[in-house]
Amino acid sequence: MTEHSLRNVSIVGIAQIPVLKKSPLSLREMGAQVVKMAMENAGVTQVDALFAGNMLADELQGQKHIATLIASEAGLRGVEALQVRAATATGAAALRMAFFAIASGEADLAIAIGVEKMSSAPAAPVLAKALDADHETIHGATLLSQNARVMQQYMETYNVPVSVFDNFALNAHQNSHLNPNALFKDKIVTPKMVRDARVITPPLRLYDSSPVCDGAAAVVLAPTDEARAYNDHPVKILASSVATDWMRVADRPNPLDLYAARISARKAFRRANINPLDVDFFELHDAFSIVSCLSLEAVGFAKPGEGWRLAAEGEIFPTGRIPVSTMGGLKARGHPIGATALYQTCEIFLQLRGQAGQAQIKNANVALLQSVGGVGATVLTHIFAN
Amino acid sequence: MTEHSLRNVSIVGIAQIPVLKKSPLSLREMGAQVVKMAMENAGVTQVDALFAGNMLADELQGQKHIATLIASEAGLRGVEALQVRAATATGAAALRMAFFAIASGEADLAIAIGVEKMSSAPAAPVLAKALDADHETIHGATLLSQNARVMQQYMETYNVPVSVFDNFALNAHQNSHLNPNALFKDKIVTPKMVRDARVITPPLRLYDSSPVCDGAAAVVLAPTDEARAYNDHPVKILASSVATDWMRVADRPNPLDLYAARISARKAFRRANINPLDVDFFELHDAFSIVSCLSLEAVGFAKPGEGWRLAAEGEIFPTGRIPVSTMGGLKARGHPIGATALYQTCEIFLQLRGQAGQAQIKNANVALLQSVGGVGATVLTHIFAN
Repeated sequence: MTEHSLRNVSIVGIAQIPVLKKSPLSLREMGAQVVKMAMENAGVTQVDALFAGNMLADELQGQKHIATLIASEAGLRGVEALQVRAATATGAAALRMAFFAIASGEADLAIAIGVEKMSSAPAAPVLAKALDADHETIHGATLLSQNARVMQQYMETYNVPVSVFDNFALNAHQNSHLNPNALFKDKIVTPKMVRDARVITPPLRLYDSSPVCDGAAAVVLAPTDEARAYNDHPVKILASSVATDWMRVADRPNPLDLYAARISARKAFRRANINPLDVDFFELHDAFSIVSCLSLEAVGFAKPGEGWRLAAEGEIFPTGRIPVSTMGGLKARGHPIGATALYQTCEIFLQLRGQAGQAQIKNANVALLQSVGGVGATVLTHIFAN
Repeated sequence: MTEHSLRNVSIVGIAQIPVLKKSPLSLREMGAQVVKMAMENAGVTQVDALFAGNMLADELQGQKHIATLIASEAGLRGVEALQVRAATATGAAALRMAFFAIASGEADLAIAIGVEKMSSAPAAPVLAKALDADHETIHGATLLSQNARVMQQYMETYNVPVSVFDNFALNAHQNSHLNPNALFKDKIVTPKMVRDARVITPPLRLYDSSPVCDGAAAVVLAPTDEARAYNDHPVKILASSVATDWMRVADRPNPLDLYAARISARKAFRRANINPLDVDFFELHDAFSIVSCLSLEAVGFAKPGEGWRLAAEGEIFPTGRIPVSTMGGLKARGHPIGATALYQTCEIFLQLRGQAGQAQIKNANVALLQSVGGVGATVLTHIFAN
């Protein structure tokens, strides 16, 4: 690979709408709305390309051809529009495609938009298609059951009780109160509630997972050399990378080693020429507490078996060593699959610009974003900086 | 946009397997097989990225996360893998993503792979999701019925009988006999058979459409500056572009003007710095005869209302002015959706290198590829040259 991508890329506009249990808007309306808002935010009336992330509309809305549908609904006749997917990491795949379009010189303005409307029909069986249909789903496995197994293995391997994960949920819910777009912005979650929550699949408890919801978010990208023409404080994308692991958890030498997270982070750190110590906060993929824990280890913030300490010792809190889920994360802002990484990107944009309101963390100059597709099978890493 | 993409891109390896009515292989096996074959063809054992095109596996195989599944099945642990879609133009979207990856400097070797296994379950209702679910499909529209309407409008507007389309089918079937990978390589189709074929949706007859089938194909891309290290006769991708039209046919000012085909072709011609007269052959999207006809007009090979003349006068034959579907096209090689544009790219690769066997056309130096998603809603154009 070339030492750097050939054109540097920056974010010049963002848009997000409140995550809701059930949006009154249709999928296309949600998508078109954030596209138009993001363009307005960047001060542009036209873009060259639009990349849409959506995982579930095929089944939940009976709709393919999502990117063109949204472009059309937003009035962008003629624009390049393609859909991209990476299972539950789909939003980050849209971001990477828009990054590609700018970095390659094929576009000067590109939108990455993610949208998911999970309230239309039961989402769980559709989400399970992120697993191997012939060898996992066929035996009744779901994302939830697979993550519960990994969590169980972690607890047994490192001899820790389930309570070591409590702070992942508490931190997320605490932070979500400061984010007006968060699904659970008004929900009070106490330590006792986390401890006493019903067990969904042992040992995984309610607050160890993330909610089904509706949401859409978008960002506008431009070449860094032109970014200030659109925005007086653009945010740089220092690196974008993807890595995969064996599709089936059972095929991995060590399911507690999030190989794809490790490899994609390593690639991204090399591209950005930084290391984990340079990262001021980490928007990780806290779809399940165990994923947060393993991601902290895979990226290099903790040794194997010690990710939970960062939670238990409060180092993931906004004032800790490595704040995570600073505006609620997947757990409490919500996890509208195809939109999730775009929400995270919007939040990073706000944090780096000092515009995160009450959720603002101090000294936010370099941010890490990771998105996990399936049970660690596909991981995208993005690094952002002022 | 920059005047050219920042790194030029070439094809250094290809692979295709015979298109079949029903493959004995599973979707993942088909995909992994062409990935491994394409890498072997390029003489490489590792690639940086894999972009998979597939439209129907969500429903037909109950499987999402296709790119990672195929990468895993091919033994490529760690590799970047993402899925991309543009409805029935999905294969070309995978090609564009791989092009992006190389052009941006984010990858030095990238695979575009397309795979579709349509024999697993009824494909037609799933294909219809390429239309607008809320405003077209809901009223019973299908790709077939929508194309039949456009065909009817063409015949009425220009006052031509249905027979003017006959040669699109005859040319495709004739050419498919010379392609060992074609679905209908052994099927004799006579002018009488085309004329007397049953009408599916008036005025659209059996041979005006393309068959449901199974197939997979892949190409390996590298920077042009490094391409000869992998292949002594690489083929250049001079341009890659996408444009969209209003999603719903009913919203378009003139459904007989394939706006997205026109705009994406114009962008591609500008990028490649060529014009239609420079094109030696055209692998068009002959899913329906009417699409072939309108594409010839939109790209500039014929005036509006006169595309049919190129067929009727034999100019689309291998020895004509603008040969199309030189190895059978979607009609007779087959149209395994996500794989189709990759088959076309393989065929173009062979034609440009003079390796198309009995199907070889003369003076093949510049090739045009178009892929149509939905009823003209998304069109990708690629231009290739020696």
